[in-house]
Amino acid sequence: MPTDSEVACFEAGIKFGTLYHQFTGTPVDRESAPGLERAIEEAIENQPHCVEASVAIREDRLQEAIDPTIGYTELQGPLMDVEIRVDYEGVTVHTEMELEDGYPRMRVESVE
Amino acid sequence: MPTDSEVACFEAGIKFGTLYHQFTGTPVDRESAPGLERAIEEAIENQPHCVEASVAIREDRLQEAIDPTIGYTELQGPLMDVEIRVDYEGVTVHTEMELEDGYPRMRVESVE
Amino acid sequence: MPTDSEVACFEAGIKFGTLYHQFTGTPVDRESAPGLERAIEEAIENQPHCVEASVAIREDRLQEAIDPTIGYTELQGPLMDVEIRVDYEGVTVHTEMELEDGYPRMRVESVE
Amino acid sequence: MPTDSEVACFEAGIKFGTLYHQFTGTPVDRESAPGLERAIEEAIENQPHCVEASVAIREDRLQEAIDPTIGYTELQGPLMDVEIRVDYEGVTVHTEMELEDGYPRMRVESVE
Repeated sequence: MPTDSEVACFEAGIKFGTLYHQFTGTPVDRESAPGLERAIEEAIENQPHCVEASVAIREDRLQEAIDPTIGYTELQGPLMDVEIRVDYEGVTVHTEMELEDGYPRMRVESVE
Repeated sequence: MPTDSEVACFEAGIKFGTLYHQFTGTPVDRESAPGLERAIEEAIENQPHCVEASVAIREDRLQEAIDPTIGYTELQGPLMDVEIRVDYEGVTVHTEMELEDGYPRMRVESVE
Repeated sequence: MPTDSEVACFEAGIKFGTLYHQFTGTPVDRESAPGLERAIEEAIENQPHCVEASVAIREDRLQEAIDPTIGYTELQGPLMDVEIRVDYEGVTVHTEMELEDGYPRMRVESVE
Repeated sequence: MPTDSEVACFEAGIKFGTLYHQFTGTPVDRESAPGLERAIEEAIENQPHCVEASVAIREDRLQEAIDPTIGYTELQGPLMDVEIRVDYEGVTVHTEMELEDGYPRMRVESVE
């Protein structure tokens, strides 16, 4: 049987996989980025045991990803910084996704 | 060679396929539905030649789809009414998706 | 700092979120189901630390979900039974998704 | 009222939007690419009026997209060449997606 901490980490992982594979590919530009961030956060916070999701589409990276002749790009993992907090049976898990050597790295920060 | 009207209809179809397959599956409840509607509209309006996208997640159908013990559902095609307008080389195409016999039907309304 | 077991469970959760939100919505019928099962398994097994993914689109539920006048349906979570095994730093995590009271329930089976 | 040719082009567009936004983001490597190509083709051919979908994940571009330390990449539009044929009320539409100036360009080839 898994411990509550292990289940909490499993649940946090589900949220990251959901966030990444549901929303990458979405057409996005600077105007639509803030509304998309909120929509992603609220979608993930609907999932069980998720008490907070924080998504930042980094303006500098977004700007760089947008070809001026096209005017928008597709949301990709490396454009986002994400923090997700899950509470399960009294265990709180902090997780985040950040760029590391050019790749979006998902990581468990703490289990309390 | 396709006519401008045919290309305009092709472009409109791309938007519908994008909208449907990018966003269905998103966890949604009554509170998050309005923000998600806007985020979908803005995403699709980023695409070439799309001048307007209007998305309504129907509150009655959403309510019915949500199991009270779960508290949210996944966005599905039948929950949405959608209108998309595409302008291409002076041709305006109105398209929509509505429920018909239980299925979301995508349709070209007019080509002007 | 999370333990290896906790990270292993986090990694397993990522795979489930990925599988669910990448592939639900895919048009599927009885002929295309076996190839889709394999493609999903191979996609998930590409992800870090995933040593085995097993996907069964249940023929009975698929058949029931297909409207004969349409001839296909969209892949949804309740149509699938899934098992995923993750190895991380010597810890093996078995996880699965099965139908429970009509909902696809993702669960950690064992951590060894 | 749209003509049959216009509806045929609309239907072809839907298939492209579906293919792109359903499957981009899928973890893929050289071994899993052929099975994924077939699964995508069969999924799209399930959709109404689609008589043929042909997907080639280009090995040279895939190889270049894969970081050797990671061993796989996510499927993206620029990695694929796609041809889709739609028949609607006696009208045949050939459409394709190819790389053009670094971007995947979707195009109506012919309407007959």
